[in-house]
Amino acid sequence: MPSPSNSAPSSSSAANGTRRGRPGYDQQTVLNIAVDVFNRHGYEATSMGILAENLGITKSAIYHHVPSKGDLLRLALENALGGLEGVLDDPRASTGPADARLEFVLRGTIEVLTERLPFVTLLLRLRGNTEIERDALERRRQFDRRVSELVDAARAEGSLRSDIDPRTTTRLLFGTINSIVEWYKPGGSLSGQKLADDIISMVFEGLHDKR
Amino acid sequence: MPSPSNSAPSSSSAANGTRRGRPGYDQQTVLNIAVDVFNRHGYEATSMGILAENLGITKSAIYHHVPSKGDLLRLALENALGGLEGVLDDPRASTGPADARLEFVLRGTIEVLTERLPFVTLLLRLRGNTEIERDALERRRQFDRRVSELVDAARAEGSLRSDIDPRTTTRLLFGTINSIVEWYKPGGSLSGQKLADDIISMVFEGLHDKR
Repeated sequence: MPSPSNSAPSSSSAANGTRRGRPGYDQQTVLNIAVDVFNRHGYEATSMGILAENLGITKSAIYHHVPSKGDLLRLALENALGGLEGVLDDPRASTGPADARLEFVLRGTIEVLTERLPFVTLLLRLRGNTEIERDALERRRQFDRRVSELVDAARAEGSLRSDIDPRTTTRLLFGTINSIVEWYKPGGSLSGQKLADDIISMVFEGLHDKR
Repeated sequence: MPSPSNSAPSSSSAANGTRRGRPGYDQQTVLNIAVDVFNRHGYEATSMGILAENLGITKSAIYHHVPSKGDLLRLALENALGGLEGVLDDPRASTGPADARLEFVLRGTIEVLTERLPFVTLLLRLRGNTEIERDALERRRQFDRRVSELVDAARAEGSLRSDIDPRTTTRLLFGTINSIVEWYKPGGSLSGQKLADDIISMVFEGLHDKR
């Protein structure tokens, strides 16, 4: 069960008792549960009725928190994309040798994935059937392009092996990192920090023992 | 459009004109198209009606080729799993140093993925809602376990770095390899062979230029 918050009811819900959420539910709690339901059933297959059932509140109570299912999706994707874009906007992503910048960005990406796992999972499973989804996919492509430019730069400075095409390199890096949404369990014995170390070790140094 | 084959109509279809497939459609062609439709719409969301529409034949004509939608799924998954299990059954997967056996199995897995891409894609997206799906997922887990044992053996012989937990190592290897179903285009400029070389280079030797 979600932990209750102490947010006061808004004036609109006070004016109309039927539109109030379960006392103590705030928008973030509604969003967290909605994202879990989207990931389990798929966004399109999830009706406001299914959401209400999972939240244990009425459909109209959901509308107290967000105007539509699309707004829940938009907020959830903003959480994922905002986190990823924040990594690229950090000064460490744009100063110093490209190799170090690339490592910083990959570590940051892994951190966002592990800390916002359900949100990034939702982003990675998008099919682009609505404008909200298409906008998110365009932002994701933009993120991928900027990482791809870092791969090019690291290769140009001689840090990365040149026998693998840079596009393939970028695909494999994202493939490896994104695949953790399929199995990583936050709060388990493998911390996000150790996972980031492991991935960085494998992709940059390789699994072979060089002793 | 699928290329027609010269398979003769079976006696049952000859006995009942309404049950005949489009002349020239054989079971493999029906299967190939069905798998593409399953991958696009999801297995559960694909009705026999949608399949018939994509095949350009009637529903009853599909039943000429296979008794049910489940049989199409079973045949498709057999194609993927049979290929993967064939890699492990090759003598090169069980003789010699564990490191070489692991590399052989990973290369073979990548080869099956690139050559049977739509079939493996279907397998990787299964959710396990039916007995056919659960059986396939159990065979996939069995395959994963055997690869995981190879990782343990390679680590025990000192070939693989020991600072990464072997379970994490196995997850990252499968994550990297399986992610190619999301982007690899058979018949493009990147051959399956080169892709296998690239993946083996990255995961065992790393992307850093060691010159």
